[in-house]
Amino acid sequence: MAIFDAVQQLKSTMGDQISTSASDLALHGQSESHFPTMAPDAVAYPRCTQDVAQIVAICAQHHCPLIGFGVGTSLEAQTSAARGGVTVDFRDMAQVLDVSQDDMYARVQPGITREALNADLRATGLMFPVDPGANATLGGMASTRASGTTAVRYGTMRDNVLGLEVVTADGQIIRTGTRARKSAAGYDLTGLMVGAEGTLGLITELTLRLHGQPEATAAAICAFDDMDSAVNAVTATIQSGVPMARIEFVDGATALAFNAYAGAQMPAKPHLLVEFHGSPTAVKEQSETFGAIVEDFGGADFQWAVQAEDRSKLWAMRHNAYYAILASRPGARAVVTDLCVPMSNLAQAVEDTRADIAKSPIPGPILGHVGDGNFHAILLIEPGNTAEKDAALALSQRMVERALSMGGTVTGEHGVGLGKLPYMEAEHGAAWGLMGQIKRALDPHNIMNPGKLVGGN
Amino acid sequence: MAIFDAVQQLKSTMGDQISTSASDLALHGQSESHFPTMAPDAVAYPRCTQDVAQIVAICAQHHCPLIGFGVGTSLEAQTSAARGGVTVDFRDMAQVLDVSQDDMYARVQPGITREALNADLRATGLMFPVDPGANATLGGMASTRASGTTAVRYGTMRDNVLGLEVVTADGQIIRTGTRARKSAAGYDLTGLMVGAEGTLGLITELTLRLHGQPEATAAAICAFDDMDSAVNAVTATIQSGVPMARIEFVDGATALAFNAYAGAQMPAKPHLLVEFHGSPTAVKEQSETFGAIVEDFGGADFQWAVQAEDRSKLWAMRHNAYYAILASRPGARAVVTDLCVPMSNLAQAVEDTRADIAKSPIPGPILGHVGDGNFHAILLIEPGNTAEKDAALALSQRMVERALSMGGTVTGEHGVGLGKLPYMEAEHGAAWGLMGQIKRALDPHNIMNPGKLVGGN
Repeated sequence: MAIFDAVQQLKSTMGDQISTSASDLALHGQSESHFPTMAPDAVAYPRCTQDVAQIVAICAQHHCPLIGFGVGTSLEAQTSAARGGVTVDFRDMAQVLDVSQDDMYARVQPGITREALNADLRATGLMFPVDPGANATLGGMASTRASGTTAVRYGTMRDNVLGLEVVTADGQIIRTGTRARKSAAGYDLTGLMVGAEGTLGLITELTLRLHGQPEATAAAICAFDDMDSAVNAVTATIQSGVPMARIEFVDGATALAFNAYAGAQMPAKPHLLVEFHGSPTAVKEQSETFGAIVEDFGGADFQWAVQAEDRSKLWAMRHNAYYAILASRPGARAVVTDLCVPMSNLAQAVEDTRADIAKSPIPGPILGHVGDGNFHAILLIEPGNTAEKDAALALSQRMVERALSMGGTVTGEHGVGLGKLPYMEAEHGAAWGLMGQIKRALDPHNIMNPGKLVGGN
Repeated sequence: MAIFDAVQQLKSTMGDQISTSASDLALHGQSESHFPTMAPDAVAYPRCTQDVAQIVAICAQHHCPLIGFGVGTSLEAQTSAARGGVTVDFRDMAQVLDVSQDDMYARVQPGITREALNADLRATGLMFPVDPGANATLGGMASTRASGTTAVRYGTMRDNVLGLEVVTADGQIIRTGTRARKSAAGYDLTGLMVGAEGTLGLITELTLRLHGQPEATAAAICAFDDMDSAVNAVTATIQSGVPMARIEFVDGATALAFNAYAGAQMPAKPHLLVEFHGSPTAVKEQSETFGAIVEDFGGADFQWAVQAEDRSKLWAMRHNAYYAILASRPGARAVVTDLCVPMSNLAQAVEDTRADIAKSPIPGPILGHVGDGNFHAILLIEPGNTAEKDAALALSQRMVERALSMGGTVTGEHGVGLGKLPYMEAEHGAAWGLMGQIKRALDPHNIMNPGKLVGGN
């Protein structure tokens, strides 16, 4: 049997870098959200790019599936072993290899987390701003084209990866991109690999664009009487040209979850959480402009987080929103939705989603990166309760259809995995076929994360 | 004969939309720079996407080459018919289809030029900032991943195309991207098509990200005693975090060319041309910070262009630099180089290039988008003078090798075409093979701009 043979050969070649312990397999087959466990047949722990190339070469020989793994925080079952095979866990490839202050880049291994990277960068005056809720690895963030609260200012992983080292499906090591800030030299392979969810190769190194730590920072939180006012305040701020670093929306249910989980003292109302970066003068001006806009939309209880410590607390609370909301219904699992629509449709999309959830039997707090038109409903279901799961999936499907009918996308930042696979054709039409052609060209034996992203695999 | 049959069928199907006049063929086979004329066998003038799909379907049937054409301003012979065939001229597809002020995008046909688009946008308060020197078409700019003076602030075409409509090699019409500001739904086909130089399909529509016209603008020009000081002032400004909208370098020879061509009165010294965008307060602060940095590096003759008219004149002069430099040696043709290196290598790269040119028998003014680490030497040669052409190509090759040895790219913004094709393997190594695999998967009969960008076609 192909997978069995591959695992045997990996074990005899790489010894204790290959694990088949039941607990390891189960751990790597789990999903952060509602998907059932789909365990691999083995877990490999490479220590360097050559290790990865060897693992891939052996698996390629046996047509054995390979799944990349960071810390397993993806939300659409990207790391589930849908066809079994070997999970490649980058735990032991988590170093910062090189930081250039002059050229503002860092070369890192895929297993380092965003928080570990930023801790490492602290003294350099530079930072890597992309921040999905979880403390994900950079390899995982690149693979799922992650974004987060700062995309409105600094862009997503698409905009912040300068180059990659990748082991392709035939075990070859390639490098994409350069250390220059731009290039017009052929197909953008970096951009193709970012968001490919490991279906075209395994990322073994990333060159990341860094940004200067802002000279001054101001953050604030502000309550609104209704969702519409909060969302419309965002649209107005974007259109005013104020360069926000962050602008986040949370609904009343999320505010209550923050109170319970993080000791916040927020009224059960929709809130905006914002941050401005720049020179002290610029930040002051931006804050004042924003304050005036918020007043127009009835924003109240404006609280500025002046101290760095208060700001850290504010954003830690926001980053842990998923866990806070999960805790608001003890024992629950979540179906997480991830709409992204044009800004002009945002208020309507949020309002329709809220109304839908209100009519359903399950709770679903709403929050999101509203400066990008991106928001999530965290639909909380009781494990094993089929009626609730059906209700959640029906709500999710309606939201997906809503996003598409508004010219948006079925996933702003969580990616495709298994959860959004059924909607790829609806979003892309014939272009989805092109994705399949690319996949088959670069991975003819369909060993790289099979069963994900493209059709017919 | 395949091409003959395709042209006959096109003529009988599409009548006067197909031209085979000698002048038309010659015009479409010309290069803006030093490449010899390579004429197509016919020129097609589609009026809509369906026309393009029909043209491609007929050519696909006969395995006849297809070359996209905007206004022919590319510099590496991207539009030359290297294998004959049919040039698809988008002259009659040059409309703005839709502008959304709320969502800040424009949907346009590929044949519209950047100046025509911005004229159309003027009253909306929005703008499309990407500005290569020539008044190129948006289809051409996307295909070559163009940038220009504003990339340091607004990015290149890679960052400013939200979605595309493309006719693929089999005549199928696909759409990539959405109108949302971000997406994680599968492979980034938009990014793959941007910079593909028509080798994967023909772009028939673009959805472009627009930006607000800045509330306040300040532009200035400033002379330096030597290149090093000018370039180091740029690096220092970038590192200070001042968000420049433009920062351009021209050398003394270019300054003299401006004097002759555009009636400027610049000393024969290196200069920086800069622009700041933002609120009046922010622009004032940025200008002052920049002024202080420039003073540290001995910058002098600081002149601010306060009136909009003066700024227009300044940037028109910069955009016409290529033509001004060409005019500085009457009758000359140009070999244009296009290095892009990490910022920390920029001063050395410019200095080594200057020294190289000084030792050569030909003139080569240097200028560039130094905020991106990107610069050009315009090597002026006498047509038919083989010794001069050899000298220019030898200089160009040395510059390419220099860029690669510094971790940079052989082309920052002009693209590959025929001129940079010989260096693709040196820059990309095994990754160039992946580009070939993608090309063969999406264009198995090699009809889309054959002989360009990838190997073995």
